[in-house]
Amino acid sequence: MLRLAVIGAGRIGQVHARTISDHPGAQLVAIADPVPGAAAAVADAFGARAAERVADVYHDDAVDAVVICSPTPCHVDQIIASVAAGKAVLTEKPVDLSVARVDECLAAIAGSEHRVMVGFNRRFDPGVRELKARVDAGEVGELRQVTIVSRDPAAAPAPYLVSSGGIFKDMTIHDFDMARFLLGDIVEVSATGHAFIDDIRGIGDIDTCSVTLSSASGATATILNSRVCAAGYDQRIEVFGPKGALETTNLRSTGVRFSGASGTETAGSYLPFFLERYAAAYSAELDHFITSVEAGTAPSPSVLDGRAALVIAEAAGQSLSSRQMVPLA
Amino acid sequence: MLRLAVIGAGRIGQVHARTISDHPGAQLVAIADPVPGAAAAVADAFGARAAERVADVYHDDAVDAVVICSPTPCHVDQIIASVAAGKAVLTEKPVDLSVARVDECLAAIAGSEHRVMVGFNRRFDPGVRELKARVDAGEVGELRQVTIVSRDPAAAPAPYLVSSGGIFKDMTIHDFDMARFLLGDIVEVSATGHAFIDDIRGIGDIDTCSVTLSSASGATATILNSRVCAAGYDQRIEVFGPKGALETTNLRSTGVRFSGASGTETAGSYLPFFLERYAAAYSAELDHFITSVEAGTAPSPSVLDGRAALVIAEAAGQSLSSRQMVPLA
Amino acid sequence: MLRLAVIGAGRIGQVHARTISDHPGAQLVAIADPVPGAAAAVADAFGARAAERVADVYHDDAVDAVVICSPTPCHVDQIIASVAAGKAVLTEKPVDLSVARVDECLAAIAGSEHRVMVGFNRRFDPGVRELKARVDAGEVGELRQVTIVSRDPAAAPAPYLVSSGGIFKDMTIHDFDMARFLLGDIVEVSATGHAFIDDIRGIGDIDTCSVTLSSASGATATILNSRVCAAGYDQRIEVFGPKGALETTNLRSTGVRFSGASGTETAGSYLPFFLERYAAAYSAELDHFITSVEAGTAPSPSVLDGRAALVIAEAAGQSLSSRQMVPLA
Amino acid sequence: MLRLAVIGAGRIGQVHARTISDHPGAQLVAIADPVPGAAAAVADAFGARAAERVADVYHDDAVDAVVICSPTPCHVDQIIASVAAGKAVLTEKPVDLSVARVDECLAAIAGSEHRVMVGFNRRFDPGVRELKARVDAGEVGELRQVTIVSRDPAAAPAPYLVSSGGIFKDMTIHDFDMARFLLGDIVEVSATGHAFIDDIRGIGDIDTCSVTLSSASGATATILNSRVCAAGYDQRIEVFGPKGALETTNLRSTGVRFSGASGTETAGSYLPFFLERYAAAYSAELDHFITSVEAGTAPSPSVLDGRAALVIAEAAGQSLSSRQMVPLA
Repeated sequence: MLRLAVIGAGRIGQVHARTISDHPGAQLVAIADPVPGAAAAVADAFGARAAERVADVYHDDAVDAVVICSPTPCHVDQIIASVAAGKAVLTEKPVDLSVARVDECLAAIAGSEHRVMVGFNRRFDPGVRELKARVDAGEVGELRQVTIVSRDPAAAPAPYLVSSGGIFKDMTIHDFDMARFLLGDIVEVSATGHAFIDDIRGIGDIDTCSVTLSSASGATATILNSRVCAAGYDQRIEVFGPKGALETTNLRSTGVRFSGASGTETAGSYLPFFLERYAAAYSAELDHFITSVEAGTAPSPSVLDGRAALVIAEAAGQSLSSRQMVPLA
Repeated sequence: MLRLAVIGAGRIGQVHARTISDHPGAQLVAIADPVPGAAAAVADAFGARAAERVADVYHDDAVDAVVICSPTPCHVDQIIASVAAGKAVLTEKPVDLSVARVDECLAAIAGSEHRVMVGFNRRFDPGVRELKARVDAGEVGELRQVTIVSRDPAAAPAPYLVSSGGIFKDMTIHDFDMARFLLGDIVEVSATGHAFIDDIRGIGDIDTCSVTLSSASGATATILNSRVCAAGYDQRIEVFGPKGALETTNLRSTGVRFSGASGTETAGSYLPFFLERYAAAYSAELDHFITSVEAGTAPSPSVLDGRAALVIAEAAGQSLSSRQMVPLA
Repeated sequence: MLRLAVIGAGRIGQVHARTISDHPGAQLVAIADPVPGAAAAVADAFGARAAERVADVYHDDAVDAVVICSPTPCHVDQIIASVAAGKAVLTEKPVDLSVARVDECLAAIAGSEHRVMVGFNRRFDPGVRELKARVDAGEVGELRQVTIVSRDPAAAPAPYLVSSGGIFKDMTIHDFDMARFLLGDIVEVSATGHAFIDDIRGIGDIDTCSVTLSSASGATATILNSRVCAAGYDQRIEVFGPKGALETTNLRSTGVRFSGASGTETAGSYLPFFLERYAAAYSAELDHFITSVEAGTAPSPSVLDGRAALVIAEAAGQSLSSRQMVPLA
Repeated sequence: MLRLAVIGAGRIGQVHARTISDHPGAQLVAIADPVPGAAAAVADAFGARAAERVADVYHDDAVDAVVICSPTPCHVDQIIASVAAGKAVLTEKPVDLSVARVDECLAAIAGSEHRVMVGFNRRFDPGVRELKARVDAGEVGELRQVTIVSRDPAAAPAPYLVSSGGIFKDMTIHDFDMARFLLGDIVEVSATGHAFIDDIRGIGDIDTCSVTLSSASGATATILNSRVCAAGYDQRIEVFGPKGALETTNLRSTGVRFSGASGTETAGSYLPFFLERYAAAYSAELDHFITSVEAGTAPSPSVLDGRAALVIAEAAGQSLSSRQMVPLA
């Protein structure tokens, strides 16, 4: 039984609190949030202790591991403090908005890197896992083209987006990690994008982008993002090789289809957003974390994976503004 | 080059005229229709001779074969006269509304049965042919359940329906033939149905039915018919055996799909009706007829197949009115 | 918080134990099973008390409600005893294999019928609920044809089947209830079936059937069952009305599709069996039971619903053996 | 009745010969091919005159229009000569491999541009036409992302490819035209690609590419090409806007689907190649050409459209070799 504390009582913190609460091998001990009163309601709902001083969890002997769900700028400090206190860590993405800061983190946790996992939840989606296993088994041959469509149902509010680090570090970072998961190291990044939504243009960000990544093998990953999608949370991956293609199609709440004068085989909207779409992934991610911590093995994805995705995100930003293709070392 | 005459310049006659005209091995020589003026326009469109006396085509040495597209009550006389005149015959379904009359036909053409083919066009649909070939190859094992959904987009006008012989002889007869095509001889018929449409109830017919046929092997065919279908011409067959299932899905004019707030993966309506849905089938049917006539072999389906489907239709009518299951000899 | 005891520690008893354990408003107090040792392991897994004397749960003040998962012949006695002891009851289907015995049950619980719910889990499947709600909202118009395909992945062992009451009372009974759920009262039953599997023929049962039910409105339900299905647990419902059709399609563990030389858009097998396919339904069923008990309202489906499905099952058996259509009063 | 001559009796020439032959408003007068004997067999099959001297068709008063299906280097000379002789022209793509040469062509036919159409057949595909009409009707809002997947079933032989002008001018040029058809003018081109196939690397070409085009509106088109595809001729377009998405899915020879232990809903391979996939498009293309010529209006796409696609192809080649994004004037 792994005893966990969650830092951050916001939306994603609540997701992890519930996932921990539902896991037979995990116990939710505490929820910490410096915002007065924020932790209490969540802690009550899951029978955990609320803390307003985040440092409390580092010094709590009843806590084996920390799940970091705070705002991104807090991540590195909390990772370092948690590791220093002997806790294992599962941190939300991105590790930080700056590669330099991630490098400071890596230096600070040197020797304990295997105690920290980064929450790229999509690697644990049952569809993605099946696709990856079948690719690894050679079902489509060596990959040549990967296409990742990732569109949110609606844009987050501008106050959130303005501190998000921009679309590449906030949203596309999941897809950068997925491209690495499927293709390995990326050697070149090329990004195009546009702000069709006034509020997003107003904060200097874009809402729609197309990014091409080249891998060392010559394969490419094409990423299509949009902050809005009328049909729901559009999440698809297609991998193509000489022997065939595999795709993960969108999921819906039921399999009901309608046929009539307005059209045929009409299915429902896609699952609304990441909480619903990746519920099973969050659970499998936690399970991998627990298993790794208890076995003393390094969980994956690691901080180095988090760093690699961030490097691609920075290159994408540079490509977008410079209108250049950006090679990676 | 087979030289053909078409009897009957109505809708289905025009279908055959076009099909003949498009076939590289066929020549449309004449179109006969006793309704004054009816044949002329069609004949002109296809560069054929128009005749108002049907008998003209029997005596025309330039005619090798006759395609009978007249009203059902005329079929038998025209089959007999054509065969007597040495012509090969492709007749529309049903051969007649009475089994006794079909037996008279068979007696009259005795020795020349191989010169007459019945136009159960669906046997020639590319999807049906593929399904049948794969069943014959053992892909799903010995058949256990066949499900045939056949729904028209809209009911024909009452004046047509009143002389149609009723839903079983006019519409379901295609499905009875399909069940025989897939399962062989039928040993029991059970029919349920209802008139939801006032005009159809008014003429003593039904518009919706469910018919179960049992084959000698123990397999069953379930037929679902409706005279109306909001989504278009709904034509599906599913065959099920111990090793799997094969189905022929509906076809559409394009493969376009829409996804948005009103739903996802919305396809278009099914192809509107039999002219569009079975265009390729009519062509393949004619091709089989021509090939058979030129080789001197018996085309299939034969008048005996037409009789067998009619026997099932009569049993279905008897089952519907008596509320009994009807065994067939 | 409703405190529940489960009677019967077999497969379905374990399903309910887990469902209760996962429900925030339910507490699993005890598991009773007269087979020595059977309850202990399950009770341990869910932190409940094990009992070998079923009567213990009737006399336990800490038990508010009983979930009956014992063999069918025990159901009625246990329903009566539970109700007499003041417990609410959720019983697995069928209530009994005999309508007369169900009538005895109804007489014994007279005045407390609203305290007993019958576990026709499929009514609570999210797809079925959505379909029913859209039908009720008039989306397809008044129903004319309902098609229910229900095929098990593999036949249960002969020792189980021999005491199951036969395919209609054991398997099709779910579909009979579904037909009533969608169409209301049934007025005629017609059944055809066959044993293709030697072991099943050996015990005098059939493994494949086609049943047609007629409703008072003139609509029909067609049920297609098979004890085996190579593709997995095949569970589909299609409802057809004058304005369109709605169907619940099969579900799979992921949305992965493969395209290559062996074919395109190949999806995985259907969810293996009822535990996986109806996991959400069992949860929603329990939720409805808890809500009803706590509100003092009558849960649905009731014992009368269980009786009605059994009456249809008996009629189907009679139809199968007599080769007659069987009218219902 | 428009009287046409075809120049070039190869594969695509035969496609046009058949299409003309099947069109009720067109007459195939002659087929010219300088390769001794090449025209004769094709001409015989369609009842046309064969010519070994291409110039014969220019001087033939019985020819109203010329369809140019010769090797690409011959196109411009033949366009100019045909127009000079007063013939209307439908030429295969690309107009030429050099933009400068296309400009010479435009200068030579100045004043008669409306007499020349370029054969970008995909614009006439029924699915593409429906998609375009629905986009124009505002169904998905202003386009933001277009994704074009275009994969050939198998690579053409190296001797053909070596003179093809490379993947961008030979294959992707169709997709460049499609992007312009849907998005209008393109302002930036970015291309990545690789040769996975030894023979193709050997001739200095690539077999797999990902190209991103930016339009003036900020929308992007992503093109994914492969010279090989195990599943068949993979031809898909998805357009995405704020109100939804429309896609043209792949087509197959039938709608048959298989479900069994190896997977479910398995459809057949895609239509094998362009002859089958775009048969209806070639017919509609010819129809538009005939209608335009007879009305004296300018057919579309024009030589200017052909030039614009070629400009993009040249930019893609430049981007590929320079690893730069290439702006277009």
